[in-house]
Amino acid sequence: MKRIPSKTVERLIVYRRLLASRGDEQSRHIYSHELAGLARVSAVQVRRDLMEAGFSGSPSRGYEVEELLDSIDRILDAPDGMKAVLVGVGNIGRALLSFLAGRGLKIEVVAAFDSDAAKIDRVISGCRVYDAQTLPERARAMGAQIGVIAVPGPQAQAAADALVEAGATGILNFAPVPLVVRTGVHVEQVDIMRALEKVAHFAKQEKAREV
Amino acid sequence: MKRIPSKTVERLIVYRRLLASRGDEQSRHIYSHELAGLARVSAVQVRRDLMEAGFSGSPSRGYEVEELLDSIDRILDAPDGMKAVLVGVGNIGRALLSFLAGRGLKIEVVAAFDSDAAKIDRVISGCRVYDAQTLPERARAMGAQIGVIAVPGPQAQAAADALVEAGATGILNFAPVPLVVRTGVHVEQVDIMRALEKVAHFAKQEKAREV
Repeated sequence: MKRIPSKTVERLIVYRRLLASRGDEQSRHIYSHELAGLARVSAVQVRRDLMEAGFSGSPSRGYEVEELLDSIDRILDAPDGMKAVLVGVGNIGRALLSFLAGRGLKIEVVAAFDSDAAKIDRVISGCRVYDAQTLPERARAMGAQIGVIAVPGPQAQAAADALVEAGATGILNFAPVPLVVRTGVHVEQVDIMRALEKVAHFAKQEKAREV
Repeated sequence: MKRIPSKTVERLIVYRRLLASRGDEQSRHIYSHELAGLARVSAVQVRRDLMEAGFSGSPSRGYEVEELLDSIDRILDAPDGMKAVLVGVGNIGRALLSFLAGRGLKIEVVAAFDSDAAKIDRVISGCRVYDAQTLPERARAMGAQIGVIAVPGPQAQAAADALVEAGATGILNFAPVPLVVRTGVHVEQVDIMRALEKVAHFAKQEKAREV
């Protein structure tokens, strides 16, 4: 399957979420300009993204919503779902476990890992915490393709190395450091501190403009 | 002060973090290619970003690190620090409070808000939780310029409206919905579910390529 650009994938995820959260009383069809309005992008963008995703709707009646959802699912998801493991059961790690638990997601967190003996063998939001030393073999045996890193910065690269050793091909990194991984492993960083500092900078600029 | 592009601000935040975490035994000067190596960008990019930030180093000896840090601080931060309030004390909200507490940050979370009576008046990671109804006047009285939204999607726009009413000029949005705010308010979204779904998509693609 051809590679869909990163930004298109992001928008397809948002379209799916918006379509899935429409009420049952809504029309079974949606026009590109309606979806565009919900997603706050242009109608041209919507049509281009859906075409990129291989979906050809009928512009006269709009897109059939169920069909569109099925089509986006097929592109974005693995048919049998995917397994993820979490590394680092600190504040952010625990919040993620709780946030992701029992949502019936296509992505299931099957194990967590930590090096703190006080946390090992505990069950947090339905997920058991294992010794980080056992990560490579355990994550591989469980068939985890996704690793979520929520350890402090200095430990993040080692966590990434262990995940790659275990066969993970996707990493979601909450640690505030860039990771080095081999080609064939996709890394996505969520940098909360950077986002907060960025907001602070622009908030300061906006404030200065006001006065 | 002129507006620095969003992506440049992001990189300046990363440069500062990398410079600040260098050990004391390191040289007092740093070359653009060294900083570039740490940040995993090109040396040209580093020089362009620092110039954009109004900093002219001496390329023969490299940049003086303390001077560079001071300069980035001046550009990014408000001199007296900034106050933030958090809306929504669920899993993510609590993790953020704990994560941000006692870090001696320039950005201080001075209050949290929730509509759940069981949470109101509790103190979480040193931060008191107030009734969400009191947000506009309380956040204004406290001089909060930044609002962090960690409520479920359907409540996020109302939270944003209350923050803007309170005078906030920057919003960090963890809710999975786009927000509408007036010009002069900067919104930054951290979409954790989207990031995870994106990783899953690319992990699937990479896996498919392997076999």
